[in-house]
Amino acid sequence: MATQTAPTVRDIDEARERLAGVARVTPVYGSETLSRLAGREVWLKAENLQRTGSFKIRGAVNRISFLDADERAAGVVTASAGNHGQAVAWAAREAGVRARIYVPLDAPMAKVEACQNYGAELVLEGERLENAMAAAQAYVQAADATFVHPFEDPRVIAGQGTIGLELVEQVPNAATVLIPIGGGGLAAGIATALRAVKPDVRIVGVQAGKSGYTIADGIFVKHPGELTMGMLDSLLDDIVHVADDEITEAIVLLLERSKLVVEGAGAVGIAALLARKAGGGDGPALVVLSGGNIDPTLLISVMRHGLTAAGRYLVVRTRIPDRPGELIKLLQLCAEKRVNVVSVEHHREGMHISVAETEVELTVGTRDLAHGDEVIAALVEQGYPTERVR
Amino acid sequence: MATQTAPTVRDIDEARERLAGVARVTPVYGSETLSRLAGREVWLKAENLQRTGSFKIRGAVNRISFLDADERAAGVVTASAGNHGQAVAWAAREAGVRARIYVPLDAPMAKVEACQNYGAELVLEGERLENAMAAAQAYVQAADATFVHPFEDPRVIAGQGTIGLELVEQVPNAATVLIPIGGGGLAAGIATALRAVKPDVRIVGVQAGKSGYTIADGIFVKHPGELTMGMLDSLLDDIVHVADDEITEAIVLLLERSKLVVEGAGAVGIAALLARKAGGGDGPALVVLSGGNIDPTLLISVMRHGLTAAGRYLVVRTRIPDRPGELIKLLQLCAEKRVNVVSVEHHREGMHISVAETEVELTVGTRDLAHGDEVIAALVEQGYPTERVR
Repeated sequence: MATQTAPTVRDIDEARERLAGVARVTPVYGSETLSRLAGREVWLKAENLQRTGSFKIRGAVNRISFLDADERAAGVVTASAGNHGQAVAWAAREAGVRARIYVPLDAPMAKVEACQNYGAELVLEGERLENAMAAAQAYVQAADATFVHPFEDPRVIAGQGTIGLELVEQVPNAATVLIPIGGGGLAAGIATALRAVKPDVRIVGVQAGKSGYTIADGIFVKHPGELTMGMLDSLLDDIVHVADDEITEAIVLLLERSKLVVEGAGAVGIAALLARKAGGGDGPALVVLSGGNIDPTLLISVMRHGLTAAGRYLVVRTRIPDRPGELIKLLQLCAEKRVNVVSVEHHREGMHISVAETEVELTVGTRDLAHGDEVIAALVEQGYPTERVR
Repeated sequence: MATQTAPTVRDIDEARERLAGVARVTPVYGSETLSRLAGREVWLKAENLQRTGSFKIRGAVNRISFLDADERAAGVVTASAGNHGQAVAWAAREAGVRARIYVPLDAPMAKVEACQNYGAELVLEGERLENAMAAAQAYVQAADATFVHPFEDPRVIAGQGTIGLELVEQVPNAATVLIPIGGGGLAAGIATALRAVKPDVRIVGVQAGKSGYTIADGIFVKHPGELTMGMLDSLLDDIVHVADDEITEAIVLLLERSKLVVEGAGAVGIAALLARKAGGGDGPALVVLSGGNIDPTLLISVMRHGLTAAGRYLVVRTRIPDRPGELIKLLQLCAEKRVNVVSVEHHREGMHISVAETEVELTVGTRDLAHGDEVIAALVEQGYPTERVR
């Protein structure tokens, strides 16, 4: 690939005209709870409410609008089981262009179906994204089709940059803007727009973990490319990292308080704010929630984890005599303490369990950590040897 | 209480002026997936993104704006552990008026805390909402404070009606509007506005179950009051009912496809549309998502239920010889079929289990119902006696 040139704010302005009436101008919300927790005014750019559930259609629509007649006839291609694949499928259909999306065999059915529903041709190929990518490249060569890169393309970056122009109008007094970094196209585009229109704003890129996404992207580890990394180096004030636990807490808070479903990669900005990693004092912080395409089974795990951390679940292990009526006594004590029993497990094998007793692992729903402590104290007071598991 | 008069569209217009800059003008979103599933264009009024997470602040703000100086000094009171309580707490704080909220002892901590964070004085009283209500009424008498009713009040109804004025501007071509009915204030207000501005639109009220809310409201069964019922009788084209299973499916779809957290009571309109209960042909349908305050533990249950129904979980029971290495064989077969093991349970007691074998209950994550069938077929082919549990 020849060396590419970074887009300018003029490219972004033009992209905005192309996106008008196609992409949504997503809303910005303040959040009282998040502001209190972060110790500064917090604003959320809800790009998870964008069409297809992520910002990616901005870049895809802009890129596809540059195709000439021959290129349109040959169609577009990409390899992605995630947001970019859905965005290319959607943008191609809107433009009346054929799209061919390569995904690995293990890709979640929901995402494959989403691409198909947008009218794309799906090709399941290989165990990993690398295999799907190789197959996509081979097809591009053979069919003279256009490969739409998720970030290493100035026209894609310019499309993502349109968010920056909206931000300046929606929250003119923002002091710090936090943007997730995966491949870097989103942050590079937004930062280009902000530096042109509002040069003094502090811009912080946020990455998940030190080694790329984990819960923030189940598919594969993304790193910024040559073009985007060069742009980020010159445009950002800082790049910070957040841990999975911090992301989990952010997802749960956004869900519970802001009623927004945000994927891991989209919640890193809130995670950074809550961990006081954003810097730049206590001025208004504006966080880009880049997408909402989180797998429901993963979301359930995230919520359970978050609720346990907040003391909304208590797991205790205790022992009771192995005879009729004893479990009822234990459960009555739970009912008196107004906890909701989630599960009861009996364990009869183990060095510390005598033949006349059984170990019981109780999972109960509690109001908060203090309520859990109260339950444990009540069990101990009644003579149950009780150990908190989590 | 003296007989009250229904508000007019003029009252609603005036309420809108009072709400300007206080309540959010919540966005309306189209949904491709929901439109496909419902067989007609579907638009979502995202009132779950309203401040405090539900439409209730519209009525509360409007009601409180009518207080005179003496009433303001004495403060407002209500009994509610839910959306109305939070809305009164929030609206009172915005107006600089004291609020006292009575809630039952068992009220979820998250809701109690939300009211406290909005600066209200919380009084925990009694086992049920009726007890809290009685205590609130006693205080109102004693302190000459103003009780803010959740729906039987023309000023509250006029506040909720402001949504109707927004709807007409946001989706001018809506043919059918679906509105949840609990106490009836929301539907009465919106219908008053719609009948005045767009008299021909079909207006359908949606209730959960035949006997009031179940999953749609964990707190207590609400019925329309005298004032709201009279209004609904004359304003609505139809009232339909949806079942818990239909509501569950609607919540999961809104979460997965629209990235919106919607509570049971807020999802009944989508449930009615998907169950083809809305009537009125196939014109554009506009659904009011009234709120997003769903308890996270309930949301987890709803999601698990929805995913199981969609074939994303498979639970099978089988038997294996009770000796080392046999479980590994079984799990290897699962790995080959590319299912993710969620849990493994051994059962050794039971009439049909011989001493040399153990029953295993396997819960696995599957792509869809067909994938689950494939797994079962593979187990049976390898000689495992396999029974689908769910």
